[in-house]
Amino acid sequence: MHDVIIIGGGPAGLSAGIYAVRRGLSTLILEKKILGGQLPFVREVENYPGFKSILGKELADRMVEQVKQLGVEFLVGEMEDMNLKGEIKSIKTKEGEHACRAVIIATGGEYQKLGVSGEKEFTGRGVSYCPTCDAPFFRDKIVAVVGGGNRAVSDALYLSDVAKEVYLIHRRDKLRAEQASQEKLKEKGVKPILNAVVEEFHGDVMLKSIRIKDVETGIPAVLNVQGVFISVGTIPHTEVEKKNGVAVDEKGFIKVDRNQKTNISGVYAAGDVTGGVMQISTAVGEGCVAALSAYEHIREPYWKKKG
Amino acid sequence: MHDVIIIGGGPAGLSAGIYAVRRGLSTLILEKKILGGQLPFVREVENYPGFKSILGKELADRMVEQVKQLGVEFLVGEMEDMNLKGEIKSIKTKEGEHACRAVIIATGGEYQKLGVSGEKEFTGRGVSYCPTCDAPFFRDKIVAVVGGGNRAVSDALYLSDVAKEVYLIHRRDKLRAEQASQEKLKEKGVKPILNAVVEEFHGDVMLKSIRIKDVETGIPAVLNVQGVFISVGTIPHTEVEKKNGVAVDEKGFIKVDRNQKTNISGVYAAGDVTGGVMQISTAVGEGCVAALSAYEHIREPYWKKKG
Repeated sequence: MHDVIIIGGGPAGLSAGIYAVRRGLSTLILEKKILGGQLPFVREVENYPGFKSILGKELADRMVEQVKQLGVEFLVGEMEDMNLKGEIKSIKTKEGEHACRAVIIATGGEYQKLGVSGEKEFTGRGVSYCPTCDAPFFRDKIVAVVGGGNRAVSDALYLSDVAKEVYLIHRRDKLRAEQASQEKLKEKGVKPILNAVVEEFHGDVMLKSIRIKDVETGIPAVLNVQGVFISVGTIPHTEVEKKNGVAVDEKGFIKVDRNQKTNISGVYAAGDVTGGVMQISTAVGEGCVAALSAYEHIREPYWKKKG
Repeated sequence: MHDVIIIGGGPAGLSAGIYAVRRGLSTLILEKKILGGQLPFVREVENYPGFKSILGKELADRMVEQVKQLGVEFLVGEMEDMNLKGEIKSIKTKEGEHACRAVIIATGGEYQKLGVSGEKEFTGRGVSYCPTCDAPFFRDKIVAVVGGGNRAVSDALYLSDVAKEVYLIHRRDKLRAEQASQEKLKEKGVKPILNAVVEEFHGDVMLKSIRIKDVETGIPAVLNVQGVFISVGTIPHTEVEKKNGVAVDEKGFIKVDRNQKTNISGVYAAGDVTGGVMQISTAVGEGCVAALSAYEHIREPYWKKKG
């Protein structure tokens, strides 16, 4: 039996681990793939306070080492089911059931991919899913944003302050984004390419161009761009949680209050899985709050059990 | 005219600076004393993800350097007044008025001091105001908590899981804390010393003992302790803000929503000044969100002005 099980070993889960174990709670972090979450796949991080510039992998390693040294246990395995009812909760993996008194959900999410040739290869080498993280690398360069929703339009507008030229590529003949935003696109000189999909990413070390195709005529074209920001949505990892009664918003992100509490007693959530701005700095802040809230929650029955 | 003025150069303000300037906003941080806020006065930080252990001063220096390199302007000076009405806001210091389109309040707060001999000298050498930060340094040691409110009781309870012996020193004959918490103190073996005040801190390099006095009889006593946690309240720095209509809670902390918005359009707050758990990790997360919210707010008029 652990005091706390943290599901997910990205920055939010690792931060929660630091605060939980320092409060004397026996803590297990369950990670399905790679410790550090998405962080090891980020090339350079320049917006986490304390590091001017650090490789994502290095920052993840530093956090993991810090958490291990403090005595948090790690288990690599995928959560198959959970039982969040009652005072004692349990998390089920292939290896068995793991009981605990509080659960912190830090399962993150993933950027929706286009799933086309070269996308994976050039991620971090011209292809990005996070303008807040990467836009400054594209100062005075030519970039494209892929997507047609409010977020894509917002990304294109932001990039237009930084980049030399911004294309906005959308597969439909109209943008879904609000009219006001569309007018701003015009003001800012963003060039929409409608009815178009990206079919391939090209380059050598870095991205140099993309092949796009008009979905009506089928006619292909090559667009020379140094950067492509893919903004077609984020998918939070909440399948098992939803099935077990954790309340989510219309996009599937877990609803939390300022103490990172979910709708279920003893269950907290932190990081990208709760939506918001999805930054490392917000993830570590939310992880901290979730752990301290979990501590408050389990203190009483915990002591009673300990006698 | 700046796009954003951030009031306060602690971790929340510095993080806000990073995100604001990376969004292309012209950004000024106004700090009344020392860049880094309270951080330079913290000896060792062991709970900020990314650093196993770092001196507060060093972490502050790293953040300040990062922010400066990105092009944030700094001004050392005290805010005397502010005007938050309308689209263009202004912040007044002795040197003059500074106009901006959005304000981020990150003025922090300070732990209420006892104001007795040796307190300052032994801060970081046995005297602490933050159990969440420092309790692990006192494993199996004898400590005292000073205070009688819910927070002091909560601190004493937490420390009883870590320390060998915990005293709770309160100047009145009853604790203000809830009855339930008081019963827990008994369960956990915390020893209350009521009707007592701390008069002096003693030691050489590190704290060794304190002199306390019974407020009724005037009889002094010496208590051998390696740690004293002073938990008599936090005073947020919100005088000027309150006068200018920023809504605060009953303890004087600025009220914010999940986007760090205050009750006034274009005015945001982040870090200790908003209350909560008051950790570096939460401060940087809130600073990030405040800056991105400010960016969203000023984008439209900003562009209109720019033509």
